[in-house]
Amino acid sequence: MQALMMDRALTLPSILDYAARYHPDRQVVDRTVEGPIHRYGYADALLRTKRMANALVAMGVKPGDRVATLAWSTHRHFELYFAVTGIGAILHTINPRLSSEQIVWVANHAEDAFLFFDITFAGQVAALQAQMPRVGRFVAMTDAAHLPSEAPADALIYEDLIAANSEDFSWPELDERQASGLCYTSGTTGNPKGVLYSHRSTVLHAMALGLPDAFNFSARDVVMPCAQMYHANAWCTPYAAPLVGASLVLPGRALDGASIAELIEAEGVTFLLGVPTIWLGVADHLDQTGQRLTSVKTIAVGGSAPTAALISRIEDRLGGQVRQIWGMTETSPLGVINTPLPRHAGEDSAATLTRKVKQGRGLWGVDLRIMGEDGGELPRDGHSAGALQVRGPWVASAYFKHEGAEVFTDDGWFDTGDIATLDAEGYLRLTDRAKDVIKSGGEWISTLDLEDAVCSHPAVAMAAAVGVPHPKWDERPLLLVVLRPGQTADPEDLKAHVAARVARWWTPDEVRIVEALPIGPTGKVLKRELRDQLATPGRVPTP
Amino acid sequence: MQALMMDRALTLPSILDYAARYHPDRQVVDRTVEGPIHRYGYADALLRTKRMANALVAMGVKPGDRVATLAWSTHRHFELYFAVTGIGAILHTINPRLSSEQIVWVANHAEDAFLFFDITFAGQVAALQAQMPRVGRFVAMTDAAHLPSEAPADALIYEDLIAANSEDFSWPELDERQASGLCYTSGTTGNPKGVLYSHRSTVLHAMALGLPDAFNFSARDVVMPCAQMYHANAWCTPYAAPLVGASLVLPGRALDGASIAELIEAEGVTFLLGVPTIWLGVADHLDQTGQRLTSVKTIAVGGSAPTAALISRIEDRLGGQVRQIWGMTETSPLGVINTPLPRHAGEDSAATLTRKVKQGRGLWGVDLRIMGEDGGELPRDGHSAGALQVRGPWVASAYFKHEGAEVFTDDGWFDTGDIATLDAEGYLRLTDRAKDVIKSGGEWISTLDLEDAVCSHPAVAMAAAVGVPHPKWDERPLLLVVLRPGQTADPEDLKAHVAARVARWWTPDEVRIVEALPIGPTGKVLKRELRDQLATPGRVPTP
Repeated sequence: MQALMMDRALTLPSILDYAARYHPDRQVVDRTVEGPIHRYGYADALLRTKRMANALVAMGVKPGDRVATLAWSTHRHFELYFAVTGIGAILHTINPRLSSEQIVWVANHAEDAFLFFDITFAGQVAALQAQMPRVGRFVAMTDAAHLPSEAPADALIYEDLIAANSEDFSWPELDERQASGLCYTSGTTGNPKGVLYSHRSTVLHAMALGLPDAFNFSARDVVMPCAQMYHANAWCTPYAAPLVGASLVLPGRALDGASIAELIEAEGVTFLLGVPTIWLGVADHLDQTGQRLTSVKTIAVGGSAPTAALISRIEDRLGGQVRQIWGMTETSPLGVINTPLPRHAGEDSAATLTRKVKQGRGLWGVDLRIMGEDGGELPRDGHSAGALQVRGPWVASAYFKHEGAEVFTDDGWFDTGDIATLDAEGYLRLTDRAKDVIKSGGEWISTLDLEDAVCSHPAVAMAAAVGVPHPKWDERPLLLVVLRPGQTADPEDLKAHVAARVARWWTPDEVRIVEALPIGPTGKVLKRELRDQLATPGRVPTP
Repeated sequence: MQALMMDRALTLPSILDYAARYHPDRQVVDRTVEGPIHRYGYADALLRTKRMANALVAMGVKPGDRVATLAWSTHRHFELYFAVTGIGAILHTINPRLSSEQIVWVANHAEDAFLFFDITFAGQVAALQAQMPRVGRFVAMTDAAHLPSEAPADALIYEDLIAANSEDFSWPELDERQASGLCYTSGTTGNPKGVLYSHRSTVLHAMALGLPDAFNFSARDVVMPCAQMYHANAWCTPYAAPLVGASLVLPGRALDGASIAELIEAEGVTFLLGVPTIWLGVADHLDQTGQRLTSVKTIAVGGSAPTAALISRIEDRLGGQVRQIWGMTETSPLGVINTPLPRHAGEDSAATLTRKVKQGRGLWGVDLRIMGEDGGELPRDGHSAGALQVRGPWVASAYFKHEGAEVFTDDGWFDTGDIATLDAEGYLRLTDRAKDVIKSGGEWISTLDLEDAVCSHPAVAMAAAVGVPHPKWDERPLLLVVLRPGQTADPEDLKAHVAARVARWWTPDEVRIVEALPIGPTGKVLKRELRDQLATPGRVPTP
């Protein structure tokens, strides 16, 4: 029997409508690409968004069209988050850190019909224009005074569109399952793959993010995502913040420690999120200047797993508590989060750190399981490592155009490509990426554990463990280490440091100090590149 | 274009599955109808719920069947919340405060096929059995030792069913729009009308309830609903608490001050909800015993509007902050909630109280509008009073069997029957029930404002304003007042007290002190009954 409740679709424009009505003066603040800080309330943000919605319709954007952005975290990008999705089109946030070749590839694969770009990319876009023949309109996200001369000759100007269009616009009726966003994973193998979010998945994820044991968002918060808006929608915060009337601070292009610290303190930011290296940069800046931050309550850290030492350093220098998360573009991204349980009240600081280096526990909506090599589910015992698979209303069911279908199981789960354990308390602990795992004598060695072990040495800035061929054990670990500026260390000392912290047979045969490691567009070490370099006789790892 | 996200239905059993896995030891505590306190963790609650699911299937409950309860707030009722809905049947929570005639009427109207009853009602159920011919099975919610002799002869025993059935049960696939619950409003005009909740509406409402600016539920909370589980699902807390792993304390039958105060302190309750009179009872008990409560953080108050004096008294005696809500059975029930905004930080205590007597502000998901007598929308100016209409994914679209269709507008809104204003800050302020409004000289007089005004007098316990016919002004207000025990007051003094607080022409022509007022099954004054009594020459109001 069908219920008799209103069949109201869960749609993204309803979020901005709500914020404009009930939190008109709560702010969206950004560091513009042109330089100055821009700020307005949600009421004014809605009016400009409606102008842009009229502009999109006038320039021929149809429901289902892909509208691409090549843009930093700014108020104009925020407006497009709602204007594009609100008219039923699909916002394709391209990662500008991709190579030009990859940018062209994803734009063509997505069949983008419109491309909005920040002035940073004006020359690059002009150079690539001929290779993206489907893109019928380019729009420079600036005003006429700041349009670079190298931009495509026929590019429209965002502020001209805003000025020329009315703020009177009614959102069309939308199906909550229609696509709202497209974000490609920068996979390290094969071509990038597109995740096609729905209004429904995004709204449910935004609601779940706001709950107290997740991001705990209220109208008293000031949320600053330091994951760019092309990284899984800045972890969905541009939707989750207005849903509760939290202010939003968008850092623009500059994610260096000084720029971020300045915005945090000036805007009274309470909630930060981003990859660990961002917070290391902020901590270094604070060390150098002696500046103190006074407003931060929570720092959500994800993208790569921070060490205990790094967690301590972030908390000491930034104030606030670190909540690690694990997630992926395919999971919107929140999969698990590390929030203290009631039983953790009163634990000592060592126990707290041991807990905090785990990725976290499931929240309602996301089911997790660990699968063994034989395809059976492994016990949640904290040491049985296997393939992490997830399922839930904000998890992808397929990639755009059904590429890479092998990671979606027949029984409806997404295979993350991560190797992990789940413990009896429900904590997820990543041990490896499936493709990076070292298999030695038939057993797995966790590269993340080796890296964590060596990174706990004060001289070490970062590290990467890779498997190298071995005649007897198939593979043995090699640990490549980058030292902190001005530090020195003896490789044998580092090896001893690791040996004291991991299983005896995990100890790498060699620790090698290198100048740098190759880093990909999402800030992670490119281990495939590293293995290729190591396999080439006479080459040494280079960034 | 359809998105490519997993099409996972939002269903109620997923909530208990989650709590059992991630919060196995968080407690469901209740005062049983038999007397003792019962407690178990969510893991054990799930196992018993699955036994009951097997029992329901074995006794022939089919998807869509209505399974009625006549029961207090206990762990067995909690199990039925998930077992009945989890197998795809519909839980019909009958209000035992209804008259026997009304109970029979709603059971037959709902076409209940099964009826679970607490032993309190064993004799009543037996007496009514013949009048409910569709009910094929009666189940006494107790064990064999406590089965009253007067229960229906063929009644099954709940604990026997638990013992006889396996805890091995897999929830069937459910459509999120299928009906999960049925709750009749105890309307004061006409027959009761059934609200037919869906899994989807209930899950979305439970998620929204948990957000920090609503009920702010985390795994560190201990939630005690003092609205019975037949009152709009105890405001949905039996679903919202396990969704985040909060413990749940169910007070059973006893809602007197002593019983509630004892549970609050013994269980460390952090969150309370219920109608104002409950808290008055607790405050009186605390006054008498000198007992102090140490754990309460929030007291959500709804069902009727508390005065400023009552809010102060509740906060002073119980500890914690009052958050007023407005809602109805038809709104699941959360419609608006009064949570401080950032700009309220630092306001003085008088301003805080002025704010707290308003019903609250909208949250994402619930749209509100105020309609004038001409059918046009009124401005949100804080003084234009009109018909309050609401819309949202957890608002009813119709009543069961499409009774009372006139309150659902052609453009998709529910007309609440409340008269209210909305102000520029988004605050809703009820001024009346549409059917209770006093129209004098063509203008409305707010009965709630008159009652609030007189209740701020220290001698007054409760009050009811009603319109009485007047040859010139059509109606004029009469204010009936019940004094607090041991207090005396002069009616003319009370009139002067009111006159100082309301518009001059609102001042009642008469204030009359009475022994008591007629109270309905949800604890509200029955104004229709009152008007009928007043219209009968020679009668005086009696309870």
